[in-house]
Amino acid sequence: MNIDDMVMVSIDDHVVEPADIFEKHFPKSLMDQAPKLTANPRNPNVQAWLFQDQVVGSSGLNAVVSWPKKEWGMDPTGYAEMRPGVYDMGMRVRDMDANGTLAATLFATFPGFAGTHLASLPDKKLSLAACKAFNDWVVGEVPETYPGRFVPLGIIPFFDQAESVKEIHRLAAMGCRSISIPETPYGSGFPDFKSGYWDPMFEACAEHNIVQSLHIGGGFSLIKRPEGFNLDDMMVLTPLISTIAANDVLLSGVFQKFPDLKFAMSEGGVGWVAPWLDRVERHIDNQSEWLGSSFLPAGMTATDVWRKNFLACYITEPSGLSNRDRLGIDTIAWECDYPHSDSTWPRSPEMLKEELDAAQCTDEEIDKITFANVARFFDWDPFKHIAREDATVGALRARAGDVDTKETSKEEYRRRYELANS
Amino acid sequence: MNIDDMVMVSIDDHVVEPADIFEKHFPKSLMDQAPKLTANPRNPNVQAWLFQDQVVGSSGLNAVVSWPKKEWGMDPTGYAEMRPGVYDMGMRVRDMDANGTLAATLFATFPGFAGTHLASLPDKKLSLAACKAFNDWVVGEVPETYPGRFVPLGIIPFFDQAESVKEIHRLAAMGCRSISIPETPYGSGFPDFKSGYWDPMFEACAEHNIVQSLHIGGGFSLIKRPEGFNLDDMMVLTPLISTIAANDVLLSGVFQKFPDLKFAMSEGGVGWVAPWLDRVERHIDNQSEWLGSSFLPAGMTATDVWRKNFLACYITEPSGLSNRDRLGIDTIAWECDYPHSDSTWPRSPEMLKEELDAAQCTDEEIDKITFANVARFFDWDPFKHIAREDATVGALRARAGDVDTKETSKEEYRRRYELANS
Repeated sequence: MNIDDMVMVSIDDHVVEPADIFEKHFPKSLMDQAPKLTANPRNPNVQAWLFQDQVVGSSGLNAVVSWPKKEWGMDPTGYAEMRPGVYDMGMRVRDMDANGTLAATLFATFPGFAGTHLASLPDKKLSLAACKAFNDWVVGEVPETYPGRFVPLGIIPFFDQAESVKEIHRLAAMGCRSISIPETPYGSGFPDFKSGYWDPMFEACAEHNIVQSLHIGGGFSLIKRPEGFNLDDMMVLTPLISTIAANDVLLSGVFQKFPDLKFAMSEGGVGWVAPWLDRVERHIDNQSEWLGSSFLPAGMTATDVWRKNFLACYITEPSGLSNRDRLGIDTIAWECDYPHSDSTWPRSPEMLKEELDAAQCTDEEIDKITFANVARFFDWDPFKHIAREDATVGALRARAGDVDTKETSKEEYRRRYELANS
Repeated sequence: MNIDDMVMVSIDDHVVEPADIFEKHFPKSLMDQAPKLTANPRNPNVQAWLFQDQVVGSSGLNAVVSWPKKEWGMDPTGYAEMRPGVYDMGMRVRDMDANGTLAATLFATFPGFAGTHLASLPDKKLSLAACKAFNDWVVGEVPETYPGRFVPLGIIPFFDQAESVKEIHRLAAMGCRSISIPETPYGSGFPDFKSGYWDPMFEACAEHNIVQSLHIGGGFSLIKRPEGFNLDDMMVLTPLISTIAANDVLLSGVFQKFPDLKFAMSEGGVGWVAPWLDRVERHIDNQSEWLGSSFLPAGMTATDVWRKNFLACYITEPSGLSNRDRLGIDTIAWECDYPHSDSTWPRSPEMLKEELDAAQCTDEEIDKITFANVARFFDWDPFKHIAREDATVGALRARAGDVDTKETSKEEYRRRYELANS
């Protein structure tokens, strides 16, 4: 396959919420209590969201796209410094064009990847309103404005089971295909997947064939690090959270209750899956007699469940495809991670293709990994609004010739921003 | 290769210390304060070690070999119930014959796999004496009594840097090839590998080319589990500790100080290595500019360091060999884990060979995995005392025709034990 003929759908991109999201989508009656932009206490030159007396800013590391590497870091950042595609969805679509990305899911920033920040706040009525406002934007406004460019993914007010179920039904009616839920909810003080707490939400998702997306994030603190550990340490190890989260899901017995429920594991890569499945299957074979282990649906192996109920995705991982026959080729997808520091934008097609070629993937395998598995698993038609010939890397890039993908400093972005807003 | 022609060396077997170990090896002047066998408070029918007012028994799960699976469990066990090969090294060698195992390393039980129990006790002089007594037995008496059957592996009094260095020199003079140190010492309240605390010990080991064996164990508690988690959960996830421990070692910068220091990762399997190396190398390539990361020796990649300084081993892991070219075939070894519940005894040759064949390993690759990598890495000659033709699975099993490998109940072992000791 020629690189220009690939079709690429990312199931893990991120969005910094635009400045007007709550003005446009928060209930009018509560507008005085909506999240408001304020000066970030750590750097008054950039913004942060003030909501329920809590101030939350954006970490620069989560918006590095196109910055020179020497400017990367954990310092807070704001709209003026960011590449506009981070928060402006018109510019985002152009950045996706420039990277050959047909479509993407958008994970929240201020609410938490899975709404965990909203869940941590005291006034649940306001948090519910913020959750719905975000969804009205990310599942409603954005995909409607840019048909075929976003796989709708929402968050739920998981601090309230009944409201979550209602929100899942509402989201389903809006065309939502996935919700982001905390990958290790006990890491955020909520019951785990085995507890039964999540069952009403799982039932609603199963009814609408809505995928649970488990993005690593809230689970970072689950792996105890020594005092004085550094960022290298944390950044290298965090993909382990995907193994922990998938194991939590599998061993919870949730598939005995909801045999068709689906989980997409975001940002953990794919290489962990084979050793984990090997380990689970040896464990069941070797230990279940005395442990009385029972968490799989009758007649299914862990691999059967993986192939039916899970999808993993990777950004760049040269060894990731070696075990694709062990996992099942239908269980592997790609992600871009725009605009985070792990992202391969704007060279994703080249990096992805090089690894697909090194693994000697067939054209059919390439299609599955780059878009077809997502289409099937998320029950989302990539070519409903855009014909395949217009959806390829080549077609998308052809119309993005004027998109500047060069390294650009925060200072230059600020100059342009102030010029545009003066 | 015919299964009978394989040569098998396990770098992760365990021993329950025999009842007379301290009578024979504790200093005479301190004998009244030596570890003594006492009735286990959880089951007075089995023993436990009483030392420095602490009582420590053996978990049944660490001595299940040849028990019916319905008798496996965490209940304490003692000599009468155990298969004699667990604690009697004469019988152990016969069990190794029956499994075609030429040689093995022996990890401690009562002292802790890496001496962490001894390190936790208040009287350091007595703990030091117990540590040396164990070493006199496991590095001295046992390998001398059974030449060529054990790769000598000791423990060190790591609670005392100066004594540890002295003990490493003493062990080296005794022919010791490896020491077991805590894989995540901060999990046991000691400084991590980056702290400098371990440097004198590392320096002494580098001087004698002694391998650090990092067996998963003390790090179990590093992965926070939800309340009410079960044993399935813990047992499936614990191999993750190998990734954490190897990452701690690599990122500590220890190889910049001691370029030749060697680490053997025990019981974590091998499948985790490729995704971890992929992650580390992408991290360095992508993030080190702003992080200023520097932990590798000049001019070396993480893969170079892995291939020079690490050895991983697996018990049974059908997908484990898929990435052997990525890791380097010279970095993979086998382990038996006798007499723990993960062990493949007495069918290790069959299970190992089936996986080697499924991975289409060449004869040269088989030799490397089953013994040659251990011989090189541990600088230990497998054929010094036993000619290769007498060291094979076929030759060892030929003389073990009378070893009963059948499932045998604790009750039957007790009957035999009481008969023999009546």
